[in-house]
Amino acid sequence: MARSLGRIFNGLQRLGSVSPIQTQLRYPSTSVYQPVRRRSVLAVPSFLSPKPRDFSLPNPSWGSELMQLYERYNSQCEVETEEGEKQEGPWKRVPSYNRALKYAPCGVYLSKIIQSKARLFTRNINDPGAAFEYVLFINREEQKCVGIFQAGHLLEGPPGHVHGGAIATMIDTVTGTHASFLSGPVVTANLNINYRRPIPLGSTVLIESSLDKKEGRKLFFSCKVTSTDGSKVHTETTVLFVSISASHLLLGG
Amino acid sequence: MARSLGRIFNGLQRLGSVSPIQTQLRYPSTSVYQPVRRRSVLAVPSFLSPKPRDFSLPNPSWGSELMQLYERYNSQCEVETEEGEKQEGPWKRVPSYNRALKYAPCGVYLSKIIQSKARLFTRNINDPGAAFEYVLFINREEQKCVGIFQAGHLLEGPPGHVHGGAIATMIDTVTGTHASFLSGPVVTANLNINYRRPIPLGSTVLIESSLDKKEGRKLFFSCKVTSTDGSKVHTETTVLFVSISASHLLLGG
Repeated sequence: MARSLGRIFNGLQRLGSVSPIQTQLRYPSTSVYQPVRRRSVLAVPSFLSPKPRDFSLPNPSWGSELMQLYERYNSQCEVETEEGEKQEGPWKRVPSYNRALKYAPCGVYLSKIIQSKARLFTRNINDPGAAFEYVLFINREEQKCVGIFQAGHLLEGPPGHVHGGAIATMIDTVTGTHASFLSGPVVTANLNINYRRPIPLGSTVLIESSLDKKEGRKLFFSCKVTSTDGSKVHTETTVLFVSISASHLLLGG
Repeated sequence: MARSLGRIFNGLQRLGSVSPIQTQLRYPSTSVYQPVRRRSVLAVPSFLSPKPRDFSLPNPSWGSELMQLYERYNSQCEVETEEGEKQEGPWKRVPSYNRALKYAPCGVYLSKIIQSKARLFTRNINDPGAAFEYVLFINREEQKCVGIFQAGHLLEGPPGHVHGGAIATMIDTVTGTHASFLSGPVVTANLNINYRRPIPLGSTVLIESSLDKKEGRKLFFSCKVTSTDGSKVHTETTVLFVSISASHLLLGG
């Protein structure tokens, strides 16, 4: 896996001359995550980059539970000092786009990899509320990541309930974002989900990711999906990520 | 989980007076799978049931690998005897629809559960070739299930590659169909995926499910995702399903 992904990053390396992007690029799952801290690997020339839609911002489809939790965490993203100055709070909202490389100035090699029509799986439907509505927050100090997820009607598995694959997708997304925030580029190596209770379509759940331990390049995470008040456990998961060094990636090793 | 799903089937039970449906209804993932053998639980009055699109049939987006493998298995679904008569072959294609209960005559309770706009997660995009293109075949004698899956551009995770959640979704779909075929209604209890090698967008892979053992109500499956020639292993997975009796479901236990 690392070899193949290394080739991708060989391609990305050729973008070195363009300016740093202003947004976070996340590459979820079985894959390399672009870390939150490292914003300068990929780049988009400003004249080719109209402001894309940030899917992590509220839209009219968001129900009261999603809105309330969004506001709870978002209010802690910026705090006021005693002197009345605003400064970064303990939480940070993670922006979310449907393409990482929409306007990337592709080289010949890269253009083979990046398909112009490609869209991030969790953001491939534009109809608000129909599929995955979610927002992620990261707490630098506590090294936590939470996702608030409202499941739309296009995610059906059993009648009236969310498909287990859609739940797996959200778990992978939240833990992957968390792992890349802590450790830079990672690949998902193992995803082990215990399904406890189905999630009704239309409902909102809380996805909490925490780092259990770090052993060399391995990062072990736990992730729990619960009702928003924490009273019902839907899934319990462990996820293993392997940290990949930039040189490893860039050399295609 | 069983309790909640039991409520669904309490609702479905109220449909008992209508005639058996002619198609297979599959309910993938963290959920109750409707078994292939038991076709009479859900029912649709014929006058309300125009023939729905079967997504498992070829369309112009299917590439040569998907078509070749489809034809290989499909040609073994019906064989000719020495006397020139046609009879069922060792393999059976599994039809696939985007809704299980599109025209179900819902009672009051059921109508709360079954949303009219709900669509099966893996079939929620109508644009051929854009997302999940797949067909499943089951071999009754060998107790095997295979899925042939062509990954569309809307399933992106890492640039140019399939999202791990989309892969998990397909694994759940293939093994869940297999489990329900062997054992009637089941719930997914555990999904444990080892990701070995990423899958490029646009490529076709083979998903093979096999039953490892059965212990009481537990069914243990292995599932491998490989390149179509079997030379590259993308993921190795174990899946645990728990068989649920109809009475257990219907009583909401």
